[in-house]
Amino acid sequence: MSDLSPAALSPGGTIGILGGGQLGRMIALAAGPLGLDCHVFCPDPDSPAFRVAARHTVAEYTDTEALKAFAESVDVVTYEFENVPAETLELIAPHAPIRPGAKSLAVSQDRLSERRFLAEIGVPTAAHARVDGEDDIVAGLETTGAPAILKTRRFGYDGKGQTTVRDASDAERAFAAIGGQPAILEERIDFRIECSVVVARSEDGQAVVYDIAENRHENHILKISRVPADIEPRTAQEAAEIGIKTADALGHVGVVAVELFVVGSGDDERLIANEIAPRVHNSGHWTQDGTAASQFENHVRAVAGWPLVAPHRHFDVEMENLIGHDVDRWPDLVAEAGAHLHLYGKRDVRPGRKMGHVNRVRPRER
Amino acid sequence: MSDLSPAALSPGGTIGILGGGQLGRMIALAAGPLGLDCHVFCPDPDSPAFRVAARHTVAEYTDTEALKAFAESVDVVTYEFENVPAETLELIAPHAPIRPGAKSLAVSQDRLSERRFLAEIGVPTAAHARVDGEDDIVAGLETTGAPAILKTRRFGYDGKGQTTVRDASDAERAFAAIGGQPAILEERIDFRIECSVVVARSEDGQAVVYDIAENRHENHILKISRVPADIEPRTAQEAAEIGIKTADALGHVGVVAVELFVVGSGDDERLIANEIAPRVHNSGHWTQDGTAASQFENHVRAVAGWPLVAPHRHFDVEMENLIGHDVDRWPDLVAEAGAHLHLYGKRDVRPGRKMGHVNRVRPRER
Repeated sequence: MSDLSPAALSPGGTIGILGGGQLGRMIALAAGPLGLDCHVFCPDPDSPAFRVAARHTVAEYTDTEALKAFAESVDVVTYEFENVPAETLELIAPHAPIRPGAKSLAVSQDRLSERRFLAEIGVPTAAHARVDGEDDIVAGLETTGAPAILKTRRFGYDGKGQTTVRDASDAERAFAAIGGQPAILEERIDFRIECSVVVARSEDGQAVVYDIAENRHENHILKISRVPADIEPRTAQEAAEIGIKTADALGHVGVVAVELFVVGSGDDERLIANEIAPRVHNSGHWTQDGTAASQFENHVRAVAGWPLVAPHRHFDVEMENLIGHDVDRWPDLVAEAGAHLHLYGKRDVRPGRKMGHVNRVRPRER
Repeated sequence: MSDLSPAALSPGGTIGILGGGQLGRMIALAAGPLGLDCHVFCPDPDSPAFRVAARHTVAEYTDTEALKAFAESVDVVTYEFENVPAETLELIAPHAPIRPGAKSLAVSQDRLSERRFLAEIGVPTAAHARVDGEDDIVAGLETTGAPAILKTRRFGYDGKGQTTVRDASDAERAFAAIGGQPAILEERIDFRIECSVVVARSEDGQAVVYDIAENRHENHILKISRVPADIEPRTAQEAAEIGIKTADALGHVGVVAVELFVVGSGDDERLIANEIAPRVHNSGHWTQDGTAASQFENHVRAVAGWPLVAPHRHFDVEMENLIGHDVDRWPDLVAEAGAHLHLYGKRDVRPGRKMGHVNRVRPRER
């Protein structure tokens, strides 16, 4: 017999998912083959994840009654986005375990606590300074050099909530531009490439690491992820270690991704951590068609208390996000050899909206 | 631009599925990543497919109003079982296209028409005789030899509706044993192994063939399918041709499987067709974890009017059905390296009930 924890879900159990977007949808699609049901909670009545889930609830994340009923109907709760309000977690906690847990959310919801956490576990980050007003920007430029990047501490994504500070004279404009919110001023890193490490970790501490993906953004939105990344084997090993160290220190259960800058090349190549996402991640979508088990399957397994699958990579893969009207190319993409299309079932095409992705696989070169 | 037919579904379109068992469930799970919704129609209020589909209807297959509303809500109708009543098809036909079409169902619903169809297209079958009464059995034994197998013409599956006829004196008992229904008496084939060919065919006649699977039954229920099959390359080629010829002659749109007996070995090896299943098939479940696109994805693509994926096989695979209490082994199976577990979400374990399957993959040996 296998040594499943007594708290593990049995087939027929239900995973609650906060958030009904594409990530929630792909979590639900991965739960299906494992015989697990999903109950998706989302304020948007037309959520893509609803259409592949056994149950759904349309309500706000602050709706006490709805959250209680939701939490009581499931065996465990997970989420597709890190900005779950603290009060939502408090309402759920008495009724169902939340995986990943509170620390993963608290650390990643606030850029300053994220930077402090990374420093504590010995992961290099960009030089930065805390900003509560314009004066902090002027002072912070001493630490970061100029130009620097001003980022809100909370609720930033896809380049939203950030602006470049040219010099001290630019402080007033910059602080106004991010809405005068608590922020951090950050050294601008002259990176060679961006990459990310995606780790799945189970409650008993088993951690599996996917091959490092190399990422390319357009207009601050991820456009391409490819494996293998164009980095030294030593750097890939370091990235994997950063991922595991992060997951362990968070006591993380489920998938977590760390975005990393790669600076320099060859013997001078080094990594600087940029951001932690305590959830399945866009740069891990390639795993759906290139490995023995996708990030979504391993997330479901971790959340359910099941053992993880060692994510051997079978192919070289390039994942392309279909953003806005990119999705209009679907008739070509469904006909393209070696291309695996993933569409999110979103009804309205809007510029900048992630509508789907395509994984292009080819035999491994290395 | 790709040359999709004007009748092809667009992302966001809806596939109606008659039948809410594991096959309907796996069709729906394959439609999700393609951005297609499913509406499942089934009399059983606790159907496994309901829990992964956007919509479902609980009603009998003869419920005129429910079928009309169902058909009007979808863009195309498919099915997970071949015994769809003719009247159900008639009720749906004015409102939505049915794929695969009427000929595929008519031929495969009746063992006699199936045998005649196979003979017409030049595919060998077992010697057989039509049986409408006991006298036909006695006469039929001249054709088939004894012992022979008596099978009802309609609604037989998993060994139900059949009995062995020892000799002429056994005719009365045998005819009573199958309920005195219209039947065929069939030569008992001394086969070396059983295999099957699974083909997907699109409306414009594109056909793709999966590698031939070798099947082992226990108590008349499929237990194991493995690829590659232990047959000569020439035999595999013949099986593929039988599959394509069958799909073409039926004007089939979607997946069709032909079960075949392999008689003899080496230079004497030959094939005898046993049965046509005009749908995704249990012996094709290995394709979920061993190929570029599963039988379910290619079925969805065909039904949606999309191009098919050439089903290159990446691995050697052995599929094991989890029947009845086999499923109690799930804690070991989720922990087994190289094993991909597929559970059907059925709540009650019953002897002989298909509860799930596991695909064990390993590197290709040939």
